[in-house]
Amino acid sequence: MQSPQKVAPTNCLIFLPLLHRVWEDHILSPTEISEMQALVLKQTWLQQDEKEWLLAKIDPNHPPKIKELKSWQAKIKALRPEQEVGLFEIGLALVRIENPHIKLSEHVAKDFMATESAIGILGKEATYLYKKRHETISSGDLREDTFDHKKMSEILDGDQRKLIQKVKTIISDPLFRYQEFENLNEQREQVLNWCTDLAKQGFGSWAYPHHAGGKDDMEGYFTIMETLSFHDLSMVIKFGVQFGLWGMSIYFLGTEKHHHKYLRDIGSLKLPGCFAMTETGHGSNVRGLETTATYNHLDQTFTIHTPHPDARKEYIGNAALHGKMATVFAKLIIDGEDYGVNAFVVPLRSDNGKLFPGIRIEDCGRKMGLNGVDNGIIYFDQVKIPKENMLDRFASINAEGEFESPIQSDNRRFFTMLGTLVGGRIGIPRSALSACKSGLTIAILHGEKRKQFGPEGGEEVPILNYRMHQRRLMRPLATIFALQFALQYLTKRFLGRTEDDAQEIEALAAGLKAYTTWFTSATLQECREASGGKGYLSENRIDALKNDTDVYTTFEGDNVVLMQLVAKNRLTEFRKEFGDMNLFTILNYLANQTKTNITEKNPVITRSTATEHLLDFDFHLNAFRYRERSILSSAARRLKRLIESGMDSFDAFNVAQHHLVEVGTAFIERVILQEFQQKIRTITDKDCQNTLTQLCQLFALQTLEKHKGWYLEEGYMEGIKTKAIRKEVNQLCWEVRKNALALTDAFEIPESCLAAPIAVR
Amino acid sequence: MQSPQKVAPTNCLIFLPLLHRVWEDHILSPTEISEMQALVLKQTWLQQDEKEWLLAKIDPNHPPKIKELKSWQAKIKALRPEQEVGLFEIGLALVRIENPHIKLSEHVAKDFMATESAIGILGKEATYLYKKRHETISSGDLREDTFDHKKMSEILDGDQRKLIQKVKTIISDPLFRYQEFENLNEQREQVLNWCTDLAKQGFGSWAYPHHAGGKDDMEGYFTIMETLSFHDLSMVIKFGVQFGLWGMSIYFLGTEKHHHKYLRDIGSLKLPGCFAMTETGHGSNVRGLETTATYNHLDQTFTIHTPHPDARKEYIGNAALHGKMATVFAKLIIDGEDYGVNAFVVPLRSDNGKLFPGIRIEDCGRKMGLNGVDNGIIYFDQVKIPKENMLDRFASINAEGEFESPIQSDNRRFFTMLGTLVGGRIGIPRSALSACKSGLTIAILHGEKRKQFGPEGGEEVPILNYRMHQRRLMRPLATIFALQFALQYLTKRFLGRTEDDAQEIEALAAGLKAYTTWFTSATLQECREASGGKGYLSENRIDALKNDTDVYTTFEGDNVVLMQLVAKNRLTEFRKEFGDMNLFTILNYLANQTKTNITEKNPVITRSTATEHLLDFDFHLNAFRYRERSILSSAARRLKRLIESGMDSFDAFNVAQHHLVEVGTAFIERVILQEFQQKIRTITDKDCQNTLTQLCQLFALQTLEKHKGWYLEEGYMEGIKTKAIRKEVNQLCWEVRKNALALTDAFEIPESCLAAPIAVR
Repeated sequence: MQSPQKVAPTNCLIFLPLLHRVWEDHILSPTEISEMQALVLKQTWLQQDEKEWLLAKIDPNHPPKIKELKSWQAKIKALRPEQEVGLFEIGLALVRIENPHIKLSEHVAKDFMATESAIGILGKEATYLYKKRHETISSGDLREDTFDHKKMSEILDGDQRKLIQKVKTIISDPLFRYQEFENLNEQREQVLNWCTDLAKQGFGSWAYPHHAGGKDDMEGYFTIMETLSFHDLSMVIKFGVQFGLWGMSIYFLGTEKHHHKYLRDIGSLKLPGCFAMTETGHGSNVRGLETTATYNHLDQTFTIHTPHPDARKEYIGNAALHGKMATVFAKLIIDGEDYGVNAFVVPLRSDNGKLFPGIRIEDCGRKMGLNGVDNGIIYFDQVKIPKENMLDRFASINAEGEFESPIQSDNRRFFTMLGTLVGGRIGIPRSALSACKSGLTIAILHGEKRKQFGPEGGEEVPILNYRMHQRRLMRPLATIFALQFALQYLTKRFLGRTEDDAQEIEALAAGLKAYTTWFTSATLQECREASGGKGYLSENRIDALKNDTDVYTTFEGDNVVLMQLVAKNRLTEFRKEFGDMNLFTILNYLANQTKTNITEKNPVITRSTATEHLLDFDFHLNAFRYRERSILSSAARRLKRLIESGMDSFDAFNVAQHHLVEVGTAFIERVILQEFQQKIRTITDKDCQNTLTQLCQLFALQTLEKHKGWYLEEGYMEGIKTKAIRKEVNQLCWEVRKNALALTDAFEIPESCLAAPIAVR
Repeated sequence: MQSPQKVAPTNCLIFLPLLHRVWEDHILSPTEISEMQALVLKQTWLQQDEKEWLLAKIDPNHPPKIKELKSWQAKIKALRPEQEVGLFEIGLALVRIENPHIKLSEHVAKDFMATESAIGILGKEATYLYKKRHETISSGDLREDTFDHKKMSEILDGDQRKLIQKVKTIISDPLFRYQEFENLNEQREQVLNWCTDLAKQGFGSWAYPHHAGGKDDMEGYFTIMETLSFHDLSMVIKFGVQFGLWGMSIYFLGTEKHHHKYLRDIGSLKLPGCFAMTETGHGSNVRGLETTATYNHLDQTFTIHTPHPDARKEYIGNAALHGKMATVFAKLIIDGEDYGVNAFVVPLRSDNGKLFPGIRIEDCGRKMGLNGVDNGIIYFDQVKIPKENMLDRFASINAEGEFESPIQSDNRRFFTMLGTLVGGRIGIPRSALSACKSGLTIAILHGEKRKQFGPEGGEEVPILNYRMHQRRLMRPLATIFALQFALQYLTKRFLGRTEDDAQEIEALAAGLKAYTTWFTSATLQECREASGGKGYLSENRIDALKNDTDVYTTFEGDNVVLMQLVAKNRLTEFRKEFGDMNLFTILNYLANQTKTNITEKNPVITRSTATEHLLDFDFHLNAFRYRERSILSSAARRLKRLIESGMDSFDAFNVAQHHLVEVGTAFIERVILQEFQQKIRTITDKDCQNTLTQLCQLFALQTLEKHKGWYLEEGYMEGIKTKAIRKEVNQLCWEVRKNALALTDAFEIPESCLAAPIAVR
């Protein structure tokens, strides 16, 4: 075959797009060769030399040179074809440039279509290389604000809005500008100064009685903690140690004389102090404390002593540098008799910062985060304190030097004391949630601006348009709203608690603390990864948010321990089972269980995949309730079985430990959903209500998806349904994403607090 | 009733334990009152006054005083009763002290037993308050080393043992002692010095050819990276940037002339350099790079230029301070024609550290971790470099100034280039795994020494004896061994790769990198929480391990992006589906799927809960294979359906994104299990083989537990079986815990590298 002319004969131009397409990967598959040859030979309207030119171009042994291919592509691109047209139309247009009046029978078009589909070219996609644009659903601008974020903000803040805005104004002041610290001390001093400035605003004494300069407003105190948490978290924890732990131990465990003597100076930060409970040997097991407070009848004093190194007080905030006094928890000993753990005020340092005799303090040094807080280790060597330094609300020593208490049982007295300090288990999760809001706001703003990859020949796409990215960020976004209302509910319950519901509320606080802080760690991890290398740079603050909150899962009690505490509280419905062999209660309860099984496990429910059913609040709440009840009763049955089989109850509880954590989780998740749904019913603004409804559905369904294994095991759902739920979760993520930015706007986080360069609106 | 005498009449002492027990909570339940009264009145052998004394003691209106209760308890404890005896025996012993010869009819004992059980006192547990000890299964010393950890260590190290030990010796040298750094620069200088010391040992050039002073040993290079990772990770990454990224870009993308000119100085660290690929606007989407390298025919040079800020090179290691040159990835432009991304050597700084004209560099500043690496941002302003600075292994410019390449397709050439750099996706996960080993070793040693809570009246229990703690730490421990062998397998495959399996191996590397680094972040998080407050202190190093490795999920390609790359590679089995409408392959494939469904989904398998079946290697591998195949084919069917329904393929892949990540994960998990089982068959030492078998079973079953929702959805398993699997996982955790410390010994991590005070053996 004589070598064909270099330039394409006019009519051959009609093949150019197809030729370029099949040669693009520089390989001609057998199918491509045969189909192309057939197409060429079919074209009776072509001259012999034109056919030869074309056949030469589909000869695998003589592929076109890179330069020639590029020249073809250039020719085609020069046309800037519309999104709609296909390869054939483009080819025809090329011919028309040189031969405007060409006429072709309609067969030609048909032949080309047939060939294109035979060699598997997906319709118009093949031509995106040449087009001026390639738009897809995913690459579009998906933002739609379907509600007024200011109204949403009012809903989130509720009756605390005024105070919240006041706090936000304060922490937006230039005085609170972030800075990089040269060393630990510089950072600790700055944090102390910030806390002093906050005290000047009256925030420190907010919860204290009026006579101490306070507002006697505990709810306000929680609001302040929560709002401050949009700023530096070392500052928040230092604030909590001083005004919460130290101050409130005086307030709740002490009596009038202590209040008048100390509270005002604590609230003004004139008297920095510590809450010295945790001991090295006893983290979450506070009952095991070994520090002793021995009563001396002669001079009516107590001797505070650290019997051995494991009983030293550890991780004590404010201890390393600033604390002048401490509330010390120690076993009260009278005449060699142990009267259990009580609290005592012990001076640590003089006003010039010098340690008092018998006090030894070590610095805990660098931590993963919260380095603005000066945690320390305290040893007491026979330190004498006067009798009045015993915080004597729940126990005291009478004139005869005898122990007296309105609560006879050491255990009950101890837990009543701790009960008054449960506040920390409300403050921590509320602080954590603010950190989550900041992290998620940063990741979402970045996800909207950051573009990566995209359709062939099209523009790159905002990463927030990718489904995985949406699963990563929209699910936690929904959970944040769920937790917001759950924590507000907890706060109200806590403030209005009575002796009857105190235990239930303590369990609720323990569970929500564990659930929220675990959620926070997981969410900030997603935010870090979702923000890629940018998320790793400290300037974008996910670093600090993540590392500062990481210890929240340990603070105020290890989460695993707390979840078991919740489970044991739930099991008190079964206490009689262990306390009083009267099995009526338990049997009766189990009977109810079986009843629900029958009523709820009907095929319609277990198989239904109708969207309106999957989005139905009642379906959600029933499923959550069912899980809560079933797990609880199965745990009870299991413990009963193990113990009756002769297993030591301690071993039995250990064997069932994982099961018990599930009991706690199921209880907490039911409460969260219930309160979220409850809240939504009270919303008057329709747009906000609709948005919140969608978020509530996403929270409910992602939780059901997370537990689908359990629901399938129980036969409460069938595979067809759990699959439909997953699909619905992904769809809801897609929908919520449209409001993602507006939802973060609703958090109203001060720009200066967010601070991350990637999060500039 | 006249007030009874204070001291208990002798015979009444027999009731003392029971009395103390029922009054312990200071509340007498109705049952307790009636049962106790009945018991007293039944005792015909008691005098009237004795009965009155006793009845008075069970009068709810006159509870005993705290002092009296404590005196009772003291009396009882003084006996230091044995673990075996119950309340009655103790009471009897008390009577015998004052009246040694007392005789009682056997009815009395029976009456007491009846009462005890009637008021629900759990046999001997009621008496633990008084005993000298209370031992339970959980509180025992569970450690049993069932194998020789040195032998295990040899198995882990394989043929690399000598080199591994050499590296461990070096990093144990006082020269490599950890220190706290005052500031960034101090840390960066120390890390540079460490790398220089390592270069002196010849580690830097290990993979390079002999003429460059190397050992031409790539496998050894990976071994070195992995072993160094027991030490500071900033040092490891700096090492990898210099000798891996920078050096190997010269080695693999350059030709002889480049090797001879640069490699020796790179290996000795005389020539620190950078790998300048990533651009701000294009993280994982490397194809989209916008930096240009324009060829100038006149003086045969290239002009390297940053067209706009988004095209600046970001996060470039060695750039901020030490790098003298960089391999820069840029689009080659000849006569306005774009020839795709190629690599060029560009000088950055003079020997005295002064930046060359046209080079602008900014410091990335503080990061979440790896602060010993000086990451920087590079801008090029029309920087001219000679023609020979083009790394011309895969593409070059001939004498006529024309582009030439053995690989015609720009895409294929680009991916072939990247393919040579896949090494990073092997080095990173191997480094991550070492960090995991350190973290887990610290948490496990702590878990063995740390005691919290315990049975009533018994000693506190090592937290590693708690089931939740075991689930937290033993599951990852098993996975570490699984990944160890998987990564060794990947390395061998990579080193022996051919053109045919190159793509498969790239997918394997991408997938194992993503899987391992996600696992690492999750595991170190568990280690932190499992170590409580101690884990939060920087001195215990979980802080550094966690924060330094956190970016591994982003390094070398974002994990989500990589898992999709894996999925797309797996889908090439279906490429024809999209490329060439010949449906034979796909239909044939799906047919096979259905066949397996029939053969594998038989009731015996789906329901069987026999332990030997649950622990069976074949059951495990079949289940993994089934999941891998099903998810892959369902993803293919789904994509086909969506695209055929007219959806743009880009949107289709986005809709299926979550599904695709599952495809990648299922593939990787199958490979990991397969190689683990394979490895175990080759082990000759029985003890080690048994231990590894247990670990392999734990890895397999925890993975099945993780995916139980999917297996239930598919009907591959039934609820009864997945529940049995969970039980088996918990049991295996209990068993593995007995070897936990020996297993960490097998890692042979140098003490000086582990360094954590809580991890001192």
